[in-house]
Amino acid sequence: MVLADRLDRLGTETAFAVSLAASEWAAKGNRVYPFHLGDLNLPTPPNVVAALDRAIAAGKTGYCPAAGIPELREALADDVGQRRGLGYEPGNVVVQPGGKPVITKFVQAVMNPGDEVLYPNPGYPIYESQIEYFGGVARPYRYLPDESGFRIDLDHLRSLVGPATRAIVYNDLQNPIGAESTDAERQAIAELAQRHDLWVLSDEAYFEMRYSGASTSIASLPGMRERTVILYTFSKKFAMTGWRLGAAIGPVEVAETIAKLNTNDESCTTHFVQHAGVEALRGDQSATVGVLDVLRDRRDACIDALSATRGISVHRPEATFYLFPDVTEAMATKGIDDVSRFAAAALHETGVSFCTRRHFGRPQPDEERQYVRFAYSGIDEDDIVEGLGRLRSWLGPS
Amino acid sequence: MVLADRLDRLGTETAFAVSLAASEWAAKGNRVYPFHLGDLNLPTPPNVVAALDRAIAAGKTGYCPAAGIPELREALADDVGQRRGLGYEPGNVVVQPGGKPVITKFVQAVMNPGDEVLYPNPGYPIYESQIEYFGGVARPYRYLPDESGFRIDLDHLRSLVGPATRAIVYNDLQNPIGAESTDAERQAIAELAQRHDLWVLSDEAYFEMRYSGASTSIASLPGMRERTVILYTFSKKFAMTGWRLGAAIGPVEVAETIAKLNTNDESCTTHFVQHAGVEALRGDQSATVGVLDVLRDRRDACIDALSATRGISVHRPEATFYLFPDVTEAMATKGIDDVSRFAAAALHETGVSFCTRRHFGRPQPDEERQYVRFAYSGIDEDDIVEGLGRLRSWLGPS
Repeated sequence: MVLADRLDRLGTETAFAVSLAASEWAAKGNRVYPFHLGDLNLPTPPNVVAALDRAIAAGKTGYCPAAGIPELREALADDVGQRRGLGYEPGNVVVQPGGKPVITKFVQAVMNPGDEVLYPNPGYPIYESQIEYFGGVARPYRYLPDESGFRIDLDHLRSLVGPATRAIVYNDLQNPIGAESTDAERQAIAELAQRHDLWVLSDEAYFEMRYSGASTSIASLPGMRERTVILYTFSKKFAMTGWRLGAAIGPVEVAETIAKLNTNDESCTTHFVQHAGVEALRGDQSATVGVLDVLRDRRDACIDALSATRGISVHRPEATFYLFPDVTEAMATKGIDDVSRFAAAALHETGVSFCTRRHFGRPQPDEERQYVRFAYSGIDEDDIVEGLGRLRSWLGPS
Repeated sequence: MVLADRLDRLGTETAFAVSLAASEWAAKGNRVYPFHLGDLNLPTPPNVVAALDRAIAAGKTGYCPAAGIPELREALADDVGQRRGLGYEPGNVVVQPGGKPVITKFVQAVMNPGDEVLYPNPGYPIYESQIEYFGGVARPYRYLPDESGFRIDLDHLRSLVGPATRAIVYNDLQNPIGAESTDAERQAIAELAQRHDLWVLSDEAYFEMRYSGASTSIASLPGMRERTVILYTFSKKFAMTGWRLGAAIGPVEVAETIAKLNTNDESCTTHFVQHAGVEALRGDQSATVGVLDVLRDRRDACIDALSATRGISVHRPEATFYLFPDVTEAMATKGIDDVSRFAAAALHETGVSFCTRRHFGRPQPDEERQYVRFAYSGIDEDDIVEGLGRLRSWLGPS
């Protein structure tokens, strides 16, 4: 039996192979330090769980509207709008089973086959996959290292825009590299989008996952609200990754289109989980502050250890829970010229498991430096210190 | 800002307009009897809810595998296989956020643009929508009334098959008409599929929603297992519509393809809901028997009342929770020639709310009789008797 041709264009998250390798290594009796997981090993706030139980007891176990329950759409309009200085209404909000479905639904809603879509690379691999799956041309833009971290190569980005360009995916507070735009950089992207009449998918999964300063949404810049769809997720801030709750927030016509896609795809997002989401947004926030406190300590422990390791150069992002160290020299020290083999060697020599740049979109031909991604969301501080101590013993002190 | 052209091909469930009309009529202070809902007004079994709570307490709140947790895939392989006389393995099973997502993912997995797909009409409207949305040609097959209910017009169905036919959607135990194939009819469809090398989507949402006899899956007929994808849902049997839990069960290559689509779309189905699903399948079954007992009584109350009403002709299906009465004479009695206006008149004169044939796929040009759909899953027996009593007063006794 033959499958459909479109599947040849479907990508995936190759990082799952890293999880598999780590599991197999652990199954052989080895200690593994999991820096590869973009997941949280922290509990969901108890008031959110209690709200779920109340909703089930109240019979919220049947179907609900495809766009989401009115209370949650209103709570999201209030919360997301207020944090961004924007006046959203419930009609701008369409609830999703997670943040990720916003990617495929945005692509389906705005892009025709043959259209070009600009996307960050390295970046979340599903952007590239969904643009190509639905017949678009995925055009990667790149980041350059600078003294404070990474910046978008704006000249290169501008050179990619042509008559077929329809949209740009923008992930300020970036996975995997932890970059954050300066105001000038964000403004430059907004100007580009307006000059060329582009739609913008603003992936704001990490908007509130920051340790100092304040986030700015590109949707709040003049002229941007009407062309921007925000990807919102409950996953990180509320430690709800496995609950699958998120939303697309943007112009009403896009929200209505995405609601119609919901009707065709999953009908609605789990009913009682949406009531828990209302509590997450409107209820007691003390547990979410605790999540950030824990993550800040982990970040600092990671930076301290990696900075003290030979051949590793790393910046200190003020947002996300990712580090994107340059390991070019460390690889040279070990005589390894392939970053996948470097990661495998690190796992087998030290138990430290991490993803590499190759898990975040197809590498570009002009890349010279080698990078890996450390996620510190799924590993406790003691294990961070122990695991990265082993890594330092293997690579040597700096 | 312009949206994508593909949206012109996207259909929807127009039945939501019936819910809206009923709500608006109720909001004006009128009593409404809801026969339009394909939802259950019954609680989820308490042991299933308790399993969800245990899973959350055990920390099952993070991501889980895209294809589903191993325990649920195994429980589904065992349960679905055993009930159908088939030996499925966990690798044949891919968990979904509901039964409905199996439709879009089946279409994406097996159908190329320009391929023709046969589908039942009247039938669940998302078949038609998703075939056309992904660029296929939706070719409706039809049912003919007979003494015991409805049968598929097999000669017509055979006449639709051509070189471009790629797949057939088959919904034995049918929504909206409540039809069930004879063994001969099911065998004829299996032979057609094999002769023309067609994929089969077997929508088995109502496989266990029956009051007597036993269901047979087309997947269990010789030569069918390797070309059939079963749509399984927890929604009906366990009163879990709003939980969003289902599965696609079929050949390993299709299951793996659908898992890759999961990775791109929703990442995974809500983690702790999957643990509740294991309890639903493996735990105490007493509550599910109660669901069927309640529904049988409701069915009988509906049949008694409708059979006693002038101009309404209805069969007694042994499965599903739908009735599909012929109202041609009732409409003539009232001098109404449009079935939508008949439904609106019934709502405003009696409070009885129901869907019509038009909510289940585009009507075909040769249709002469008028049908409506009564769902008795969302209305208690007392209200059935009261509401259909009013309908009888309006139309007269038979």
